[in-house]
Amino acid sequence: MVDADTSSAAVPVFFLSDSTGISAETMGNALLIQFPGRRFERTLVPFISSVAEAREVVARLDAVLDTGGPTPLVFTTAADDDVRRELRRTRCPMIDFFDLHMEHVEAVLGARGAHAAARLHGVGDVKRYNSRMQAIEYAIEHDDGQSLRALEKADVVLLAPSRCGKTPTSMYLALQHGMFVANYPLVDEDFTSTHELPRPVAELGHLCFGLVTSPSRLSAVRNERRPGSRYASIEQCTFELRRARALYEANDLPVIDSSTKSVEEMSTIILQTLRKNRPIA
Amino acid sequence: MVDADTSSAAVPVFFLSDSTGISAETMGNALLIQFPGRRFERTLVPFISSVAEAREVVARLDAVLDTGGPTPLVFTTAADDDVRRELRRTRCPMIDFFDLHMEHVEAVLGARGAHAAARLHGVGDVKRYNSRMQAIEYAIEHDDGQSLRALEKADVVLLAPSRCGKTPTSMYLALQHGMFVANYPLVDEDFTSTHELPRPVAELGHLCFGLVTSPSRLSAVRNERRPGSRYASIEQCTFELRRARALYEANDLPVIDSSTKSVEEMSTIILQTLRKNRPIA
Repeated sequence: MVDADTSSAAVPVFFLSDSTGISAETMGNALLIQFPGRRFERTLVPFISSVAEAREVVARLDAVLDTGGPTPLVFTTAADDDVRRELRRTRCPMIDFFDLHMEHVEAVLGARGAHAAARLHGVGDVKRYNSRMQAIEYAIEHDDGQSLRALEKADVVLLAPSRCGKTPTSMYLALQHGMFVANYPLVDEDFTSTHELPRPVAELGHLCFGLVTSPSRLSAVRNERRPGSRYASIEQCTFELRRARALYEANDLPVIDSSTKSVEEMSTIILQTLRKNRPIA
Repeated sequence: MVDADTSSAAVPVFFLSDSTGISAETMGNALLIQFPGRRFERTLVPFISSVAEAREVVARLDAVLDTGGPTPLVFTTAADDDVRRELRRTRCPMIDFFDLHMEHVEAVLGARGAHAAARLHGVGDVKRYNSRMQAIEYAIEHDDGQSLRALEKADVVLLAPSRCGKTPTSMYLALQHGMFVANYPLVDEDFTSTHELPRPVAELGHLCFGLVTSPSRLSAVRNERRPGSRYASIEQCTFELRRARALYEANDLPVIDSSTKSVEEMSTIILQTLRKNRPIA
């Protein structure tokens, strides 16, 4: 097989699902990212719930194939056997994440799966829904140290100078993991020579994580908000980050660098660290 | 194959990845949800970045296998060939989402993939990161109609009586799709006989979605916040939902029922509706 990344036409990619299509997109994109030289034109077709709908999708896929452009790639996670059988009639190459793997899992478990459109991202029980909603509201209320109410309910406290990525990480942990996250901005007054944690979080050191970034990135992000300000200057950013690091170190806080990590990566690290420190049910 | 859901011991499930493991978890769970009668004990092992680390993971997996409990199931998305080769030495059954599918995709594209730990959920470019961060801040600022500033920048406006799911849906769209979402609570004063949209969003009807839920669910959720209040009474909830529906109908707004749909499902429907109405680049 040779590397033939010469064609510049975008490859049409379809993600098919009898549910939201989030699984098909996630896995499909995990494969496509291995071809950084290629361009892809992505289309999501979720909620394919009947054979008739599947037939329409097949017609649409085959029509794209017949235009004579790059061969479309189709990723599917449809679990309903009838829908899947119909989808497989397409003449486009199809990567079916369900088919082969389901058999394998069934063999290991010694049981037959439901083979029905299941709602991984379905509404679930009211209790779980409510706890997630409460987590999001908690994150909004405690964003940027706005409120100190019920700080003792926090599962995690994120400390950092302004604009180091506290807010998106808090929201991600709340939304995806139902965690109660408070985030607390470090300001000049917090950088005392004694390196004590700011008073409101002084007792919560075991829940604290310190975020940092690079001075140049911090300066760039701050300049978008307040161009040319002292706040955005490279000197001020360097100073705050250096003092923040000293504070984290003095208090033995885990440190995460948001300049080299995504929100998802930071969240994964935080969860793994908490699990190591004390097993979570 | 018979349905043998009789064993009550939880099946140990491991999600392995050289990155965050989000893809392995998503796809693995999409398969496991097909076995609603089974209990699973899930462990995420992310960031496996060397052969030595992979070797430790294999030892851990095989130790679980050797306890004689239910056979563990292992899902992996490791893309690095050396890491993957080492992981496959485990004696546990392994579902490798990368291996087979990668070959298939390579054949279709006529190109060899990188086979390197790629960061689907990596930090990406600063620009994309900033736009996502701005979307989250926009959602926080415009939560519950708190601010009317820059409402014209909204990609979507969610209308609903209090506690119908506006906030989590707004956050999800901001976080996962970088969309600017404003959400606006409908209160008694908005339910006029003329069925006009509330003044602040009157010109934004083309961006508006109306959320509803069931009276019993709304009453249950509101009772958690203000037990026994008029606000939480089934009569008040029924009234508000009926008036909200009339308002949506009079203005031809798409209506989404949050009592039967998850945040992910609602977000998918919103995105699909917007795409149908006007193609998004």
